[in-house]
Amino acid sequence: MKAIVTVGLKPGVLDVQGKAVASALNELGYPSVEGARVGKVIEIQMDGDLDPDTAKAQVTEMCEKLLANTVIESYRVDIAG
Amino acid sequence: MKAIVTVGLKPGVLDVQGKAVASALNELGYPSVEGARVGKVIEIQMDGDLDPDTAKAQVTEMCEKLLANTVIESYRVDIAG
Repeated sequence: MKAIVTVGLKPGVLDVQGKAVASALNELGYPSVEGARVGKVIEIQMDGDLDPDTAKAQVTEMCEKLLANTVIESYRVDIAG
Repeated sequence: MKAIVTVGLKPGVLDVQGKAVASALNELGYPSVEGARVGKVIEIQMDGDLDPDTAKAQVTEMCEKLLANTVIESYRVDIAG
């Protein structure tokens, strides 16, 4: 079973990496780019015997403890087959 | 219009960050974690007048030029409304 965790800065938190990406793209000749935000995606391979609900609860706990800095970041957990 | 770019290391490329995450999770008391891989997600805000096909083509070009290191990384482009 696979869990996909997407972690990104909360809206309102300055994303310097995203700003750098957006201005680099503008300078490369893409004026249609209005902004960019950069986040992380963590693909976790889990024991196949776990049921999806338990897996989701465990991964949410992992996000709170380790994977996301909940002061400035938000996260989303998706369980894939 | 929003484009979501997901960039990850190609299969077979050693992902030290992923290995560190997986062993940290095991040590935190999650033995069900068998492995992890870490990638980036870049959300690009684009000019709303662009049609989705043109946007996708442009973003694919941006990946080749700037957003991904195609020697070791693969990417996926999704266009959201």
